[in-house]
Amino acid sequence: MSEKILARAAGRRSVEPGEIIEVAVDLVMTNDITAPLSIAEFKKLGLERVFDPQKVVFVPDHFVPAKDIKAAEQSKIMREFALAQGALYFEIGRAGIEHVVLPENGLTLPGQVIIGADSHTCTYGAFNCFATGMGSTDIAAAMALGTTWVRVPPTIKFVYKGTLPPDVGGKDLILYTIGQIGVDGALYAVMEFTGEVIDNLPMDDRIAMANMAIEAGAKTGIFGFDEKTREWLARVTDKPYEPVDSDPDARYQQVIEFDVSNLRPLVALPHLPSNVYPADEIEDMPIDQVVIGSCTNGRLSDLRIAAEILKGRQVHPRVRCIIVPGSQEVAKQATREGLADIFLEAGAVFSTSTCGPCLGGYMGVLAKGERCVSTTNRNFRGRMGHRESEVILAGPAVAAASAVLGRVASPAQLN
Amino acid sequence: MSEKILARAAGRRSVEPGEIIEVAVDLVMTNDITAPLSIAEFKKLGLERVFDPQKVVFVPDHFVPAKDIKAAEQSKIMREFALAQGALYFEIGRAGIEHVVLPENGLTLPGQVIIGADSHTCTYGAFNCFATGMGSTDIAAAMALGTTWVRVPPTIKFVYKGTLPPDVGGKDLILYTIGQIGVDGALYAVMEFTGEVIDNLPMDDRIAMANMAIEAGAKTGIFGFDEKTREWLARVTDKPYEPVDSDPDARYQQVIEFDVSNLRPLVALPHLPSNVYPADEIEDMPIDQVVIGSCTNGRLSDLRIAAEILKGRQVHPRVRCIIVPGSQEVAKQATREGLADIFLEAGAVFSTSTCGPCLGGYMGVLAKGERCVSTTNRNFRGRMGHRESEVILAGPAVAAASAVLGRVASPAQLN
Repeated sequence: MSEKILARAAGRRSVEPGEIIEVAVDLVMTNDITAPLSIAEFKKLGLERVFDPQKVVFVPDHFVPAKDIKAAEQSKIMREFALAQGALYFEIGRAGIEHVVLPENGLTLPGQVIIGADSHTCTYGAFNCFATGMGSTDIAAAMALGTTWVRVPPTIKFVYKGTLPPDVGGKDLILYTIGQIGVDGALYAVMEFTGEVIDNLPMDDRIAMANMAIEAGAKTGIFGFDEKTREWLARVTDKPYEPVDSDPDARYQQVIEFDVSNLRPLVALPHLPSNVYPADEIEDMPIDQVVIGSCTNGRLSDLRIAAEILKGRQVHPRVRCIIVPGSQEVAKQATREGLADIFLEAGAVFSTSTCGPCLGGYMGVLAKGERCVSTTNRNFRGRMGHRESEVILAGPAVAAASAVLGRVASPAQLN
Repeated sequence: MSEKILARAAGRRSVEPGEIIEVAVDLVMTNDITAPLSIAEFKKLGLERVFDPQKVVFVPDHFVPAKDIKAAEQSKIMREFALAQGALYFEIGRAGIEHVVLPENGLTLPGQVIIGADSHTCTYGAFNCFATGMGSTDIAAAMALGTTWVRVPPTIKFVYKGTLPPDVGGKDLILYTIGQIGVDGALYAVMEFTGEVIDNLPMDDRIAMANMAIEAGAKTGIFGFDEKTREWLARVTDKPYEPVDSDPDARYQQVIEFDVSNLRPLVALPHLPSNVYPADEIEDMPIDQVVIGSCTNGRLSDLRIAAEILKGRQVHPRVRCIIVPGSQEVAKQATREGLADIFLEAGAVFSTSTCGPCLGGYMGVLAKGERCVSTTNRNFRGRMGHRESEVILAGPAVAAASAVLGRVASPAQLN
């Protein structure tokens, strides 16, 4: 699937894994942390104009609204460059987390090549495109040239069989997968997600899976295009696009099959996303904080799952529960349909859109010795704050249940 | 009025301005910035238990949810001390800005003496109590002893005559007052706010006025007790209290009368709260940011005023508009009655409760050269961020109108 996208972007009939090729890019993205670096590189290279202002996008989402003077200055560099170039720019109050905002605005389309100065750019693979993170220098060159080079990655095909039990979603599927193959289990490969479970999986769950492909070491993750993709995109754009399908005789580096009918809601304990256990097997693990949101699980369906559990319940007195809508659009919807009300009544913080807590940079950083259940994507040592704090990854159902019980818990343990 | 409160708290029939007296305190308050300092002093003095856990209160509100590891550690020190002492503690998601949360919880009652390690502790004077800010060492001693010393301040009586025009509120009254008397116009005095305008003024507007007494150099501000005070408090507490009234023959350091019938919505331009002009006289002053909230103007009535203006309108494309509810309770109400919806639709950020932007520490810090219209209380150089940024103080109506027009503006200029 991804080889066909790359071949098309390279103007060739086919490409082989291992080849280094130059491809045209459909979108180049940076945020308030990486844009200033890319812009500095851009200027250092003597470059003046971006190749196509409608294909270069800037999203302030990490430390905004500015948490300090440095963050304010970083945002200012990005804002001024974006406006001067006439590029796409999403201001706070009209934006949110990059990986939520770009799809919402119809900017991530099937068959496209998208690069971003953020490791979770792979998120867009849910929309049947080839999307990957790159360093600031590569991004600077691509902003000017509209092309980049890629070493064509091999593909590992994942086939999910069976039917998903209740309270188990895309986040559990990807945690399960990483738990099985390890954090380098898909090193530099493309993870192609297929099977009857995937066919039935809602888009938001696919997005959560693609988002964490990088946590298995993958270059990116990708999904096929189907009616669910088409419907989702029809709500946000009428731009044309050309999906790709995998050939019947496609060659894979590996094919891995899972039967997931007996999966239970999972957690990844510190300090690796592969350190995966059923949530209900974790006993007596008290927590200090819960974060529900991020580019992994900050979409409306995630907040609906959390709200269903928090409705009429209270966040445990010892727990700070921070709910971070992925975008202004998500916040609007969540407010309109009463989810914000449920969160506030439950004693949770309903915050502005930010990547902050996930990377220990804003809106819920952990102190020494604190433990957090989080719907984010990384639980490396110190990821959310102090080196001696702990992050436990989970989906929104486990996170919400844990917030209520004050310890790592599965939704089934609530009653 | 304040002399009678102090005399009662000193166990005496009367006190004279200038005397140094020891008074019993009804409440001692600190926040996530000042609590760690006070707690350190408390321990350094060899003290073990607070004098009365129900009269010592801790509110995390400045840099929460924690913006960085340091903020997380500060909050942790406070939280652990508060819980160990069994003292009053308001966790995020169940709290908000100290000066909004304490009154909401019926902790600021007529006739009381309240001290806090925060300069805007004077806010509570709106409830006919003597409330003032103190340093961390004084607070540490008071936490242990339940008493503190005060040099009895003289009182300046302000009499407001006439009727308030539309779009003019408590914030305009206090800006006007500071504009007339200057930032040291009430140095170490108590500002006693009286007159027919005050009699008709809603509680939230009185709170905004008391809040800024410190900006005229005053020890505190105070209002009489009336039916409006009684009604407001009846909604939040059934505890008994003993209001005080000023004696008919009370001696004042000065009596200042204002006729405010022709007042227009005001702004205080950089860099002093006394640099006051009618908003509609300020021409061509573009802005980058608007903040509506804080301990001065973060209450429900303030958000209602802002929402009335923002409803069906859009924040100017160049402007970041950050709306900060004063507390979880305010956020709940604002969400329930549709104000949050209006803000989000208008392209404003509806944030968590925090003091952050006011002091340039969180949630909207300014970069070099940026200009912000803010409903906060201080516009000293660099207050909200970079030394070369500018803060323009205003009430919520002017702030909202400015957000829409992208420049300093009065609500009347919207049409």
